Amino acid sequence: MVQQIAFGPRIRKSPFFKATQAAGASHFSIYNKMYFPVAYGDPAAEYDRLVNAVALWDVAVERQVRVKGPDALTLVRALTPRNLASVKTGQGRYVPICDHRGTLINDPVLLPISDDEYWLSIADNDLILWVRAVAFERGMKVEVSEPDVSPLAVQGPKAVEVIRDLFGDWATEMKHFAFTESELDGIPLILGRSGWSRQGGYELYLLESRRGTDLWNMVGEAGVPYGIGPGAPNYIERIESGLLSMGADTDHRTNPFEVGMDKLVDVDQETDFIGKQALRRIRDGGVRRLRCGFFVHGDPFQGPNQQWWKVIADGARIGFVSAAAYSPRIGRNIGLGLIDASQAEPGTKLIVETEHGRRSATVSELPFDIPKG
Amino acid sequence: MVQQIAFGPRIRKSPFFKATQAAGASHFSIYNKMYFPVAYGDPAAEYDRLVNAVALWDVAVERQVRVKGPDALTLVRALTPRNLASVKTGQGRYVPICDHRGTLINDPVLLPISDDEYWLSIADNDLILWVRAVAFERGMKVEVSEPDVSPLAVQGPKAVEVIRDLFGDWATEMKHFAFTESELDGIPLILGRSGWSRQGGYELYLLESRRGTDLWNMVGEAGVPYGIGPGAPNYIERIESGLLSMGADTDHRTNPFEVGMDKLVDVDQETDFIGKQALRRIRDGGVRRLRCGFFVHGDPFQGPNQQWWKVIADGARIGFVSAAAYSPRIGRNIGLGLIDASQAEPGTKLIVETEHGRRSATVSELPFDIPKG
Repeated sequence: MVQQIAFGPRIRKSPFFKATQAAGASHFSIYNKMYFPVAYGDPAAEYDRLVNAVALWDVAVERQVRVKGPDALTLVRALTPRNLASVKTGQGRYVPICDHRGTLINDPVLLPISDDEYWLSIADNDLILWVRAVAFERGMKVEVSEPDVSPLAVQGPKAVEVIRDLFGDWATEMKHFAFTESELDGIPLILGRSGWSRQGGYELYLLESRRGTDLWNMVGEAGVPYGIGPGAPNYIERIESGLLSMGADTDHRTNPFEVGMDKLVDVDQETDFIGKQALRRIRDGGVRRLRCGFFVHGDPFQGPNQQWWKVIADGARIGFVSAAAYSPRIGRNIGLGLIDASQAEPGTKLIVETEHGRRSATVSELPFDIPKG
Repeated sequence: MVQQIAFGPRIRKSPFFKATQAAGASHFSIYNKMYFPVAYGDPAAEYDRLVNAVALWDVAVERQVRVKGPDALTLVRALTPRNLASVKTGQGRYVPICDHRGTLINDPVLLPISDDEYWLSIADNDLILWVRAVAFERGMKVEVSEPDVSPLAVQGPKAVEVIRDLFGDWATEMKHFAFTESELDGIPLILGRSGWSRQGGYELYLLESRRGTDLWNMVGEAGVPYGIGPGAPNYIERIESGLLSMGADTDHRTNPFEVGMDKLVDVDQETDFIGKQALRRIRDGGVRRLRCGFFVHGDPFQGPNQQWWKVIADGARIGFVSAAAYSPRIGRNIGLGLIDASQAEPGTKLIVETEHGRRSATVSELPFDIPKG
């Protein structure tokens, strides 16, 4: 039975909604209370475009929490374990956000817009409630709001050529996570070198909702020589690349050390950020679980896992696989999971309880090695 | 083109998911990051069951924020403008939650489980982040968590007979919003007299996820003599009844006075709840917008509005219609909206810009009068 997404006014539509409809969006999810087109009816072509050419993604669901005012930097520094002493305007950073127990609650990219304005480009939850509560409780002089900003991602090895043709050579020299204000044919935007893949690419943060279709079409036309087509964050590629999906890969007690964010947590800095004591205890006590990759043996999977899979060692449950798929480039089933640290050494043999029965599995490093094709 | 819901592990499945699949769920939304079955392929039958017989709804998406510990009541009283001086175990209450600016951020039902444990049965946002931030910032002795609790609603004029047959006569004497721990055939649950309709009914808060299908089937069988069938919160009935849908009917600056919650806001109580100063200013200054109903003239609407509609008076925009549909019982198009208080008097003639062109409209009281059929 085909089960439809219900369209209505309760869930917001992206500025690119009409364009994605015209492009043949076939499957939707909802993310940050917005419709999120996640497939266009041809999974093989969508994967191929991303890893060999260039893809256009409506990621307007990546909402911004804007913190603006004299205390903006003080608040942002209190929110993340990452040391922001050397933060500078125009250079984004990936910043884990933890609660007072050291549990991860979001993993945004921080965009320092100016000395008194910072954006957090967030994963799927209402981080704005957290930020606003902390700001108000501490009596900080900041305004916390959601601006009219909607990212459009251009991802894949040929993204750089599309962006060069649109913006000029300067855009090819941008560093990872650098961003700058720009425009295309009068459409105001921020151009950032970022995106949720490891294939390289950019995000165009549209600053004027009503120009969504215009921007989609301009980028689409510029990409024709490079084989551009519609797509979405790709389930297979993100597993190959070991990208973290907050909420999908994490549970109610995941801390940043468990998911390989050690370098993003500075418990020795002077700033008294939220979760500092808890994270220091965790660091000193040693981490109990670790994120790792898996090769899952047996027949190729025909689609994504439908739920978390139990991971078993010596008859006991030692964690879960959160995402699994068959990788065409590797030629094997691969997965991501969080398991007892004692079993997370690459090469360790384990059992995974899948929807397709019990399978043997082997721990892999992350990201997975991609054979040169 | 049929556009499908994407099923995967990122969004949670309800304990009733399998049962709703078996019952023919045709359309899904996502609410509180869970799949939410909103239609079963026969809108007329679903409406009819709710208003004339009894319907079974998977509302597991109505998640609970549990506040437990010595400071639990102090925290809950700080969170809501409603005066909870006389709160008592076993009697639920509808409690608006506002931020420090007096803006509505959620409108849960509060369930006082015991003297040191309270549940907030929430609308669609991560209120848990707000509650946790306030608790931690204030150093309160509470644990804030999401328990394994999933409501199943039995709604409609014959719900009371189904519940009597299942639980006994005592259940028919429960007051509105009263609740009590109980069980059915060993399935632990809380039975509450509540639900998101004005047709009467109950919610069974399932306390053990793995018994979801068992509970659905037991209630379904008990309901056979009364014409029970699957359904979901009904778009038409909730407009007729004037029920508020947080997020769908409210914007980033809606306060409780605007949406008719005056009796739930006590700015004169001693408790220094969040938003008290702002709400006192709003009360003293007078409210600028008001929620009201609309009759929208012209041809019957064939389905729900796809976006908010502008409301126009004397050529100027004065607010929005958030939800509109054709009511079979009233025989007219009806809607809900938020407009300038000066134009909100029943009988006022206005213009509404719909997807079907400009329509004239007349302000109505809420809830709408239902002719006796």
